[in-house]
Amino acid sequence: MSKIRVGIVGYGNLGKGVQKAIDQNDDVELVAVFTRRSPESMVSEGGEVRFETIANAEQYKGKIDVMILCGGSATDLPEQTPAITALFNTVDSFDTHAKIPEFFDEVNAVAKKAGTLSVISTGWDPGLFSLNRLLSEAILPQGKDYTFWGTGISQGHSDAIRRVPGVKAGVQYTVPVQEVIDRIRSGETPELTTREKHLRNCFVVAEEGANEEEIRNTIVNMPNYFSDYDTTVTFITEEQLKAEHGTMPHGGFVIRSGVTGAGTKQIIEFGLKLESNPEFTASVLVAYARAVFKLSNEGQTGAKTVFDVPFGYLSPKSPEELRRELL
Amino acid sequence: MSKIRVGIVGYGNLGKGVQKAIDQNDDVELVAVFTRRSPESMVSEGGEVRFETIANAEQYKGKIDVMILCGGSATDLPEQTPAITALFNTVDSFDTHAKIPEFFDEVNAVAKKAGTLSVISTGWDPGLFSLNRLLSEAILPQGKDYTFWGTGISQGHSDAIRRVPGVKAGVQYTVPVQEVIDRIRSGETPELTTREKHLRNCFVVAEEGANEEEIRNTIVNMPNYFSDYDTTVTFITEEQLKAEHGTMPHGGFVIRSGVTGAGTKQIIEFGLKLESNPEFTASVLVAYARAVFKLSNEGQTGAKTVFDVPFGYLSPKSPEELRRELL
Repeated sequence: MSKIRVGIVGYGNLGKGVQKAIDQNDDVELVAVFTRRSPESMVSEGGEVRFETIANAEQYKGKIDVMILCGGSATDLPEQTPAITALFNTVDSFDTHAKIPEFFDEVNAVAKKAGTLSVISTGWDPGLFSLNRLLSEAILPQGKDYTFWGTGISQGHSDAIRRVPGVKAGVQYTVPVQEVIDRIRSGETPELTTREKHLRNCFVVAEEGANEEEIRNTIVNMPNYFSDYDTTVTFITEEQLKAEHGTMPHGGFVIRSGVTGAGTKQIIEFGLKLESNPEFTASVLVAYARAVFKLSNEGQTGAKTVFDVPFGYLSPKSPEELRRELL
Repeated sequence: MSKIRVGIVGYGNLGKGVQKAIDQNDDVELVAVFTRRSPESMVSEGGEVRFETIANAEQYKGKIDVMILCGGSATDLPEQTPAITALFNTVDSFDTHAKIPEFFDEVNAVAKKAGTLSVISTGWDPGLFSLNRLLSEAILPQGKDYTFWGTGISQGHSDAIRRVPGVKAGVQYTVPVQEVIDRIRSGETPELTTREKHLRNCFVVAEEGANEEEIRNTIVNMPNYFSDYDTTVTFITEEQLKAEHGTMPHGGFVIRSGVTGAGTKQIIEFGLKLESNPEFTASVLVAYARAVFKLSNEGQTGAKTVFDVPFGYLSPKSPEELRRELL
């Protein structure tokens, strides 16, 4: 059987993760990595990789079945997803929740016109967590659901720390409050404030001579980012930052606590515990790239989300195999 | 908006659960309950219910959008699902894993011929657990997955106890071994024997004068059912059985522990904690009945499983609402 021919756009942590995920999937092959940088300057994470400038993408029409878009949601994807979807089937992990409706409409228009298919906003949140929010709400309409994130690094909050005067480097962990998770698992359905759900733990390298108390105060009182949370600030050395905070763990839980009948308690929980956030997100992208390939082969076009894709399309196995082995 | 018109076939615990679940869903209405017993002898669990003999089902063609089949998998559904699917769209919870492939083929042939749609084998296992096995295997192809059931009553094992001479009544709980679950959650991927995964705890009412040691020995050594497990047998009175073992809790976990990249550990877990197994299964059936209705309205026919149904079809919300509120 011929393999699904995939291109990667963007070669940061996510793009490198996609390359590794492709290596784990026998039915998928990497054709080329597209970058805005000079292809000659690029170094493969492992194995032979063809690097191409993004400007040459069009030359790969007919040679690539699905482009996996690995740029950031702030500035890359709003531009790249429509542009690449005009030429190829695509999958991305656009995660700016508030902008998803307009992003969907734009990509849908482009894809319908080009006859391509794009699954947007995959990954784990949005993505797998969204699926579980939908599923558990549909099954238990009378209930309450909770999403917890972490323990993991929040890029946005880490960036906010690094903008504080006197801060040389830093990283922020979002930490779910175990005690309230235990209460929910035991059947309680508390109303929770922002502060009660997550802690924010910051590890900061101060510039020489900086006032640590001032830095701490600026961080913990920062509106939107930290002032609504219990925040800790720990000052560390650059060596500690490298040695102890160099990986990108993450995860979290979606828990729905509902009732059926006359107050019968029913709890649905989905959880992730990830040693590498980008490698996991990359693995989700590759599974959805497979779905894009299959749906496109059936003649489907336009934008879709995880809500529109039957799980059977994510697997390399045939419907018969899936029914026999996994149902 | 007109409601989805549903019929229930079979009025045991599951059928009664479906009635309660319909009460929680504003877009679904119950038209009638079909039974093999005399309709006059039937008593509603709550609210006005029209009872009909199953022989009159055909008279409801055009008046019912989806029939929810609530019989047992051993003898009811193998007969009822094909028979009713010849007349109506259907959904069932057929759970005899080994027979699913042939059951699917039979229902598919009937449905294709009749122009109806049937989603078979919904519920939570098969059903939600199957979905999670597929999803986690597709995302983490290098890994190992574990399904644990319980703590909950196994009907088959309870029946086996009750067939033992000298046993008047009894109930069997399947109990997952917490210690191995903790090991898996912490990243280990042990090879587990049947005995290491679950315990079987039996609560037995002995007939007067029966030899309790003999009963215990017969149970714990029973092949297929108990001999491969660590089994406890506790003798109780009939009053205790009624007072302490009258509910039907269940649940369990599907955990996949996989690796990405160079041995990066990633864990996906889905879990249920149910105070009532039949009420929860019923709620899943109603959500899939909604999907059957929508898919049928799109002109789809034949047999499907949970693997073929996009989650968006399970919700009463529009695709736009789902993207805005839940993605």
